[in-house]
Amino acid sequence: MSHQVDSAILLIHCPNTKGVVAAVSKFIFDYKGNILEMDQHVDPDENHLFMRVRWDISQFEIPRDEIVDVFSNKVGIHFGMKWRFHFKDAKLKMALFVSKFSHCLYDILQRYKSKEWNVEIPLIISNHPNLEYIANQFDIPYYVIPITKENKIEQEAKELALLDEHKPDFIVLARYMQVLTENFINHYPSKIINIHHSSLPAFPGARPYHSAHRRGVKIIGATSHYVTTDLDAGPIIAQDVERVTHKDSVKDLIRKGKDLEKTVLSQAIWLQLQHKILPYKNKTTVF
Amino acid sequence: MSHQVDSAILLIHCPNTKGVVAAVSKFIFDYKGNILEMDQHVDPDENHLFMRVRWDISQFEIPRDEIVDVFSNKVGIHFGMKWRFHFKDAKLKMALFVSKFSHCLYDILQRYKSKEWNVEIPLIISNHPNLEYIANQFDIPYYVIPITKENKIEQEAKELALLDEHKPDFIVLARYMQVLTENFINHYPSKIINIHHSSLPAFPGARPYHSAHRRGVKIIGATSHYVTTDLDAGPIIAQDVERVTHKDSVKDLIRKGKDLEKTVLSQAIWLQLQHKILPYKNKTTVF
Amino acid sequence: MSHQVDSAILLIHCPNTKGVVAAVSKFIFDYKGNILEMDQHVDPDENHLFMRVRWDISQFEIPRDEIVDVFSNKVGIHFGMKWRFHFKDAKLKMALFVSKFSHCLYDILQRYKSKEWNVEIPLIISNHPNLEYIANQFDIPYYVIPITKENKIEQEAKELALLDEHKPDFIVLARYMQVLTENFINHYPSKIINIHHSSLPAFPGARPYHSAHRRGVKIIGATSHYVTTDLDAGPIIAQDVERVTHKDSVKDLIRKGKDLEKTVLSQAIWLQLQHKILPYKNKTTVF
Amino acid sequence: MSHQVDSAILLIHCPNTKGVVAAVSKFIFDYKGNILEMDQHVDPDENHLFMRVRWDISQFEIPRDEIVDVFSNKVGIHFGMKWRFHFKDAKLKMALFVSKFSHCLYDILQRYKSKEWNVEIPLIISNHPNLEYIANQFDIPYYVIPITKENKIEQEAKELALLDEHKPDFIVLARYMQVLTENFINHYPSKIINIHHSSLPAFPGARPYHSAHRRGVKIIGATSHYVTTDLDAGPIIAQDVERVTHKDSVKDLIRKGKDLEKTVLSQAIWLQLQHKILPYKNKTTVF
Repeated sequence: MSHQVDSAILLIHCPNTKGVVAAVSKFIFDYKGNILEMDQHVDPDENHLFMRVRWDISQFEIPRDEIVDVFSNKVGIHFGMKWRFHFKDAKLKMALFVSKFSHCLYDILQRYKSKEWNVEIPLIISNHPNLEYIANQFDIPYYVIPITKENKIEQEAKELALLDEHKPDFIVLARYMQVLTENFINHYPSKIINIHHSSLPAFPGARPYHSAHRRGVKIIGATSHYVTTDLDAGPIIAQDVERVTHKDSVKDLIRKGKDLEKTVLSQAIWLQLQHKILPYKNKTTVF
Repeated sequence: MSHQVDSAILLIHCPNTKGVVAAVSKFIFDYKGNILEMDQHVDPDENHLFMRVRWDISQFEIPRDEIVDVFSNKVGIHFGMKWRFHFKDAKLKMALFVSKFSHCLYDILQRYKSKEWNVEIPLIISNHPNLEYIANQFDIPYYVIPITKENKIEQEAKELALLDEHKPDFIVLARYMQVLTENFINHYPSKIINIHHSSLPAFPGARPYHSAHRRGVKIIGATSHYVTTDLDAGPIIAQDVERVTHKDSVKDLIRKGKDLEKTVLSQAIWLQLQHKILPYKNKTTVF
Repeated sequence: MSHQVDSAILLIHCPNTKGVVAAVSKFIFDYKGNILEMDQHVDPDENHLFMRVRWDISQFEIPRDEIVDVFSNKVGIHFGMKWRFHFKDAKLKMALFVSKFSHCLYDILQRYKSKEWNVEIPLIISNHPNLEYIANQFDIPYYVIPITKENKIEQEAKELALLDEHKPDFIVLARYMQVLTENFINHYPSKIINIHHSSLPAFPGARPYHSAHRRGVKIIGATSHYVTTDLDAGPIIAQDVERVTHKDSVKDLIRKGKDLEKTVLSQAIWLQLQHKILPYKNKTTVF
Repeated sequence: MSHQVDSAILLIHCPNTKGVVAAVSKFIFDYKGNILEMDQHVDPDENHLFMRVRWDISQFEIPRDEIVDVFSNKVGIHFGMKWRFHFKDAKLKMALFVSKFSHCLYDILQRYKSKEWNVEIPLIISNHPNLEYIANQFDIPYYVIPITKENKIEQEAKELALLDEHKPDFIVLARYMQVLTENFINHYPSKIINIHHSSLPAFPGARPYHSAHRRGVKIIGATSHYVTTDLDAGPIIAQDVERVTHKDSVKDLIRKGKDLEKTVLSQAIWLQLQHKILPYKNKTTVF
């Protein structure tokens, strides 16, 4: 079927210069690739260029494992590009962190199990044992690593060791109720996706639905973002909202919020799996 | 037509006690009114009761100008009620304040002129002459009262004098770019509706679209609220949102935001005209 | 906690007459109930009255099992009312029908298992064995009853026998891909909730996402409704939509649609569990 | 300012072949253009390619009036391309058709007058005199051309003559309540934008809000589309929706619908002015 051609994806950003699109598309054409999607824009404030291109590689004349090198030499270095290269059909590995809430976890695992997503989940890490039964339902290893203020550094070291063993392409905090240390975050820059149970930047930090209720807002939201060392201030990937009324108690806000959280988190994961997100400074380009 | 029966509206709040609905509905029934809409709820946190009732008064046995007194004696005082009473067909008077942006003003005046709203607009006050031509198009008196830091108190006195002359039922700040003084606000408690060009509480104060752009949000919003002496912190009436992407510049956010602003402001005015908003403490019940 | 008082709910409709609200609220007051929520409106086209009232029965002077009779004698029969009476804390029984798609099923079972919903699921019926493993994960009996054009009547008889045994309060078709016979539907009038994978009435029948894609719509939707003998034409309970673009293939529409389906179906079930839906003729009042 | 560079826009579609992006971007680069935005995708069902590119022409080495010819010879004819070429700063001419409703008209004229849009409105044509006063407010010629079943052909001839004189780039039917003849439409293929006061294809034809109310939908919509000889079946440009409840009468649906109509129509006009819409067969690519 036409949707399932072999294809490769480049996510590129570089200072804005003439000839970038021409150089990239010539490179692809010269080696008999066929561009399926190309999306490029220049941020006029930063004078910086962002691009995503996906091309059919079924007749591409560069062997799969040499594409990166050839592209780098022929194109990348001449424009000061930063880029990520992916094969569309490659199955990514995603590590999950959870605490006690099951709504995001089941939403993710249903998509994984039904093959809506082409993804592998090598492990689930939690600071609580509560959701282990779900991991068992889906035959995924579940590691309980309780965290206290005192033991956080050594427990994170265990987590990092586990991750190091499984080498996930990215990490998803599916309502993981712990703040990660700077050290942990620096091991996975732009590779940790969090769901914040509120619109950012309206209600950062803890108990945002209580704050929203106290303020009497008529709309609540949820925000998925990359984790940076700035709490709840990393690049935003996706947001969604839902209407609430005076009849909604805090409990109702939490209930409605859960629906937003799982939707917005799964949307971010989908974009990540499609290689559609390009973070730069404190923002994302979502192609 | 059935939609156009003569009807009266009571907006009530009081401490939660047994028998409130029974007393109100008995009062209406005893005098041969027919309830068309009744909406009541108890806020369990405050243990406070809120109610809106509209009833057909075409056969009501209390003369129009005595209803308030009879209700007060027979029902209101026994439950410590605060209430507002309105006839649905009464045309309200709305004063407008504007500065230089025309989008909310035209949106309001189109609804006024096409009789979508049953409202009278006795005057428009502005700190700039720019929109006078629009007032002229619609034959509405337009008063230019420039405001500086130095003259604000005396200029507001002129505004208050003008308002005192025209006795508006409520005031709409249709992108009026001045902060009102506490003195002014206290003359019109819960009677001044503002449109804030952003989701509250995310981006209070000036230049919210610039802040939103800098933060890289994926959703922007607008908020209509009653003006209190707490800047941008009054009871929220209505909110709406729109999606934005990395392609949207600050200019685009401002453009998209204008559409939200006029929609959300006009929605608040509509609710006000229907007597559907009941402010209490820092929140609204919107029936 | 204040949210968890014992309460009772009446859903009422009757021809519009004076005194209905007064009679109902007097009944509640006379026996020492305290109204927590009351929502009443009159449809002016039908001149028909709809009402939902919930009241605190912790001090109610009529024994639980006599409330219906007393209400009937004292109020109901005098106004030609039809009503349903419920205790808020009563756990309802919900039967599930599924075929091969797991997204709605997991969404429902996560809410069930996490106690977001106060519901019992005595059985799952399917025309396919595919999802049995999920039923096993949650320890719910799963009955495979394959349907062909030839055996539909006898197989439905088996289903009806199973249901008769378990006596569910209502039935949810969670992407059950079979049209029920008139006979089956007549056993459960206004008690079968279906999710249609499209906005109704835009795309009734089979393969609606293919039709939507062919038409080039920019918004897709999903619709939950009560099943009537008119295919896809029963009273609508809830709808939601999502934006799509020219980049979305049929496969993308199906993927995005699944998110809508599970959200909209679960919203309908939530409303059903809260006794907030009152179907009348071909529409619903959703309080 | 960086947003206001001189730029040119090409909207292209052609059969999918290797080298299209390379050829277009090389053309731009060779003559010293700088690509600011490029968006390309291949429809896998049609195996057809769609592209929009905008580039900085401040140093472009082809004179403005020769770009089309050079592009055609160097690129266009080699790929069987259809394309449209525009300068971003060129002010377009838009003709308006109206009947009796003013909401879309004021919304358009406010944007025109406040320079939100870079557009010229040479004339307004109507089958009724009702809105002439608005045209006068904005100093735009207003032609009343009443239409009956009998005179439609000759009256349309007058309209075509007027249009021929003013040469608009496109025509907007701002709630114009007449069906155009095939002859008229064929004079302006893909150049007439209509607003349908409903979600399409749910409720085509007349009185869609009455149909929506009768069906008891919980969401209403509006649809802007290009006019083709197939009534209400032309390529959809933009859609939006709003929630409604059982409390909304037909009159409320009409009122809420008007807000959708003006928003969705103005969104389509904005996209048209930005040269972001590429119609092909019965669909649009909206870049």
